[in-house]
Amino acid sequence: MSRGVLSSYCKQGSFAMVCSRTMASKTAVGFVGLGNMGNPMAKNLLKHGYPIVAFDVFPEACKEILDSGAQITDSPADVAERADRVITMLPSSPNAIEVYTGANGILKKVKKGSLLIDSSTIDPAISKELARASEKAGAVFMDAPVSGGVGAARSGNLTFMVGGVEQEFDAAKELLSCMGANVVYCGEVGTGQAAKICNNMLLAIGMIGTAETMNLGIRLGLDPKLLAKILNMSSGRCWSSDTYNPVPGVMEGVPSSNNYQGGFGTTLMAKDLGLAQDSATNTKTPTPLGSLAHQIYRIMCAKGYSQKDFSAVFQFLREEENL
Amino acid sequence: MSRGVLSSYCKQGSFAMVCSRTMASKTAVGFVGLGNMGNPMAKNLLKHGYPIVAFDVFPEACKEILDSGAQITDSPADVAERADRVITMLPSSPNAIEVYTGANGILKKVKKGSLLIDSSTIDPAISKELARASEKAGAVFMDAPVSGGVGAARSGNLTFMVGGVEQEFDAAKELLSCMGANVVYCGEVGTGQAAKICNNMLLAIGMIGTAETMNLGIRLGLDPKLLAKILNMSSGRCWSSDTYNPVPGVMEGVPSSNNYQGGFGTTLMAKDLGLAQDSATNTKTPTPLGSLAHQIYRIMCAKGYSQKDFSAVFQFLREEENL
Amino acid sequence: MSRGVLSSYCKQGSFAMVCSRTMASKTAVGFVGLGNMGNPMAKNLLKHGYPIVAFDVFPEACKEILDSGAQITDSPADVAERADRVITMLPSSPNAIEVYTGANGILKKVKKGSLLIDSSTIDPAISKELARASEKAGAVFMDAPVSGGVGAARSGNLTFMVGGVEQEFDAAKELLSCMGANVVYCGEVGTGQAAKICNNMLLAIGMIGTAETMNLGIRLGLDPKLLAKILNMSSGRCWSSDTYNPVPGVMEGVPSSNNYQGGFGTTLMAKDLGLAQDSATNTKTPTPLGSLAHQIYRIMCAKGYSQKDFSAVFQFLREEENL
Amino acid sequence: MSRGVLSSYCKQGSFAMVCSRTMASKTAVGFVGLGNMGNPMAKNLLKHGYPIVAFDVFPEACKEILDSGAQITDSPADVAERADRVITMLPSSPNAIEVYTGANGILKKVKKGSLLIDSSTIDPAISKELARASEKAGAVFMDAPVSGGVGAARSGNLTFMVGGVEQEFDAAKELLSCMGANVVYCGEVGTGQAAKICNNMLLAIGMIGTAETMNLGIRLGLDPKLLAKILNMSSGRCWSSDTYNPVPGVMEGVPSSNNYQGGFGTTLMAKDLGLAQDSATNTKTPTPLGSLAHQIYRIMCAKGYSQKDFSAVFQFLREEENL
Repeated sequence: MSRGVLSSYCKQGSFAMVCSRTMASKTAVGFVGLGNMGNPMAKNLLKHGYPIVAFDVFPEACKEILDSGAQITDSPADVAERADRVITMLPSSPNAIEVYTGANGILKKVKKGSLLIDSSTIDPAISKELARASEKAGAVFMDAPVSGGVGAARSGNLTFMVGGVEQEFDAAKELLSCMGANVVYCGEVGTGQAAKICNNMLLAIGMIGTAETMNLGIRLGLDPKLLAKILNMSSGRCWSSDTYNPVPGVMEGVPSSNNYQGGFGTTLMAKDLGLAQDSATNTKTPTPLGSLAHQIYRIMCAKGYSQKDFSAVFQFLREEENL
Repeated sequence: MSRGVLSSYCKQGSFAMVCSRTMASKTAVGFVGLGNMGNPMAKNLLKHGYPIVAFDVFPEACKEILDSGAQITDSPADVAERADRVITMLPSSPNAIEVYTGANGILKKVKKGSLLIDSSTIDPAISKELARASEKAGAVFMDAPVSGGVGAARSGNLTFMVGGVEQEFDAAKELLSCMGANVVYCGEVGTGQAAKICNNMLLAIGMIGTAETMNLGIRLGLDPKLLAKILNMSSGRCWSSDTYNPVPGVMEGVPSSNNYQGGFGTTLMAKDLGLAQDSATNTKTPTPLGSLAHQIYRIMCAKGYSQKDFSAVFQFLREEENL
Repeated sequence: MSRGVLSSYCKQGSFAMVCSRTMASKTAVGFVGLGNMGNPMAKNLLKHGYPIVAFDVFPEACKEILDSGAQITDSPADVAERADRVITMLPSSPNAIEVYTGANGILKKVKKGSLLIDSSTIDPAISKELARASEKAGAVFMDAPVSGGVGAARSGNLTFMVGGVEQEFDAAKELLSCMGANVVYCGEVGTGQAAKICNNMLLAIGMIGTAETMNLGIRLGLDPKLLAKILNMSSGRCWSSDTYNPVPGVMEGVPSSNNYQGGFGTTLMAKDLGLAQDSATNTKTPTPLGSLAHQIYRIMCAKGYSQKDFSAVFQFLREEENL
Repeated sequence: MSRGVLSSYCKQGSFAMVCSRTMASKTAVGFVGLGNMGNPMAKNLLKHGYPIVAFDVFPEACKEILDSGAQITDSPADVAERADRVITMLPSSPNAIEVYTGANGILKKVKKGSLLIDSSTIDPAISKELARASEKAGAVFMDAPVSGGVGAARSGNLTFMVGGVEQEFDAAKELLSCMGANVVYCGEVGTGQAAKICNNMLLAIGMIGTAETMNLGIRLGLDPKLLAKILNMSSGRCWSSDTYNPVPGVMEGVPSSNNYQGGFGTTLMAKDLGLAQDSATNTKTPTPLGSLAHQIYRIMCAKGYSQKDFSAVFQFLREEENL
């Protein structure tokens, strides 16, 4: 049984509700946010036999999931009224605040003992605020951002990084494992976000570093494939050099070999790096390379690279050929 | 038989000399520079049965190798006079220039057709100049910098990155494989240096990035071991996170768990990053993260971290506890 | 007469109140936040004949102003109840949010038509939110952050950068000119903050740049006074080189000649640069040097420079002498 | 009479030559390097009555000065044979090395006691080497790089920063003041270069900082002219904000108001910042902002800004309008 943060609502008699939620399977699950990621995620829940009660601010986003058998409601509040487990997948912090605490937000009609799982990538400080607000409303909030992109969302191979009360992790995992291959418990509320933005900050640093290094090596006369091979057997090795090399022609099946189409967009990376910087500023943590990586992706967005995969930083740094 | 750059001296009748060099085994090998690296390297050649003719500007550096059976001479020129294969292991570009082209330098008495292998880590542009000067003197120059440090030098497990005329690579490998486990051909003269400094630039970026990321995650409430585990199964993975983690207590047997003693010193990393920056400036290659990494190690040297392992950047970025 | 944002409360009959506020002089002025800056500012208002109704969360902070003749209240709400012009001077965004919108905040009891002037340095996005909340409560909010520090606060020589409805600027200026020598109208709400953080970001960049440049020049053999003179007659000239030089001995009467005591603390500069970064991230503006300047001051705070003047970056970058 | 470095050649009987050089006016002056800068500089010497003996590696570059009455020679050595005062104005360090120490270089035929003044902007370490080589040949070398650009070269309003033996400064000034309005003595050989690159490093930092700040302010709602005014009366003030503002429309008569035509090209700024980085690396001086400024101009060169004035960094950082 949960302690601490949860003890208040247990004392208020919500014990039965908690039990019914965690024991009963295949009761309705709420889903708010049916974009590129949310849509396939919700479908995977449907496939696993969970009835879905859904909402999206854009009615057309609901069409596909409606056809798949989901019920559509008029607001996040209505979702929370009809399902005691709700998953949210939203583009940014302000959207999450609105969906949870707005006039028609989840917390307006949430049932006592409900489990609220936010898979948006947002500022961990906001996650903590939403958890406090949820607790006041008698519900449990967990943050569970994902890595893996649209492809992994479709195939049910996302990785979920989960923050929140440990006693609720199993209940969350029951749902999340329908949508992802890895569900990792990270610690208290906000640590799922923390793990996500930490990973993406290091990813961005490694990618820009790999792009700089490959570019420098090529200009010094090294063959790019040979350089990648040397790095990958040495201490310069990283995911961006050995799995997602940004230089066209070094690897097959990665965005760099497809004109930087697909993959993880520069604008999304810039957003995640912005969150990392917000968190670093809030905690007074120096992150010189993380900060410069943010600036570089910010400049790339301003210069027309928004929609390209984030490995296009190699293209950005390379001399243009027809000057 | 060699072509191109070598054709000139072949025409001048050095063919016999080249043959004697590449065919005869176990004739004397010259060695200039008997420091922390050069000493164990020369000993490994002795162990493999090669007579050694050695020189170091500090007489005391020669004592150990003298006791092991090497012959000591008065100058690099004298070394080159007595051996047609010479290996040099020197601390910096000016030393290499002096040892090769100085008043008592190798090129003053080098035999036609000699093979000169420089294992120093220096500016690739200097390697190219030394190669040109060697060619004028009728000798072949190759750059073959190492990775692996003093421990690998002792155990014969260095990695050599070799640049120079491909036809001479086998001759070089015969000697280098006595001192190293990997001998990688990188391309024309200077590309060995290029591969070395490219690797170390990306290594520095990955290390600082890992230190920032671990520090940020810890301040956001993540357990450092758990964070390392998450990164290492995700796209943030790099050598510094999974093999040489800079946070004390995350891994055993690495400098971070031994107060940053041993390993690869901050001052050496700063030197290699300086070479990377020189090369980037010469080739007009933008390297924003590599450049900032250089600056950070430069500041660390100014603030008392010179002798610590380069993973001490975690300590440098972390808030001091007793302020 | 005011239009737009103010028209709503005018229609509601607050015209008389506005008139009484802007015409009547020497009616009570509220003051919330009596720290190092607020205390001398409030005293200057007293000296100009304005009765003061004050509050600070630390009772001892009120003692001095109480002895000078001010009235002390129990909460920001009480201040707003007794004065229709209120000035706030608070350390950070969360404090400002609490003082305005908290349970005992100004907006709980603010009179219709009141003028609320916030001289705190906070995120301009927060200023805009407070302005919206104030407007809902029938009051006018202006942001008016200062430059000049404690000395200028005492001597009444602060510079105020004011954002808000232009029609209210004269009313604000009447009070602010009692505390400052310059009162500059910057535009709509939030632009006062914007001007402040823009100035301080460029100031930080100029200061670190000057410190780097002076350090480099000294190491290249230049006399620091001569170098400063050359820069100041050339295009390298900036406030940090010609008015506040960070090198000890170059100028008199600046913190660098007093062991970096006094002046503008590194921790305050780090805070302002954090606000600049938040604003840059929110508006997706690339600020590579501003971002790196933030990181450098952040590292300095972690390394024991918090309480020193921000020109101590020269000391931070200089090689320590006794390593 | 000169001491130290000069005493050797004085003892060798060059006293008469020194006297003839420093006393006699209007004897021939040598000039090597007749590019965009050298040409108008040499013409100003002609205007002041000095016969000119000139050389440029491109014959067509000599045409204009030949028509103006100068004598053209076949090599730098020939220039030095006919004139005991020689001025050089060359694009980069390798050119300077060739012109002084090459097979047909100045030092091959230089007269004892000659005064050699190099106005190129090169690495101060190279200046010191050229000074040593000149001293061996019995001549005096001074470095005297300029600031001011082609316009100032034409109007004779350059600033010269002069390094070298102080006793020779008056002799140098006699010539330099025909071409410049300011001739500043900086210290021993190399300090002229040091002063130049220090100034330009701080200039670049100030310019990028101003561009970032103006861009951020505009996005936060400030009028650019007003923001410039506020900065210029505050501590953010610098040459780039008050004399050469990079935002179109803020000032008249600057490149930003002329589509960044004219002025000081981005590629030249990148070159000077490269020299600053070389010097910083050689002297182990941390210059984090200077280093990042170098990288930013390097990226701009790669992205098509080479020929624009260096204030175009504002354009580079600003969001493109038609994405």
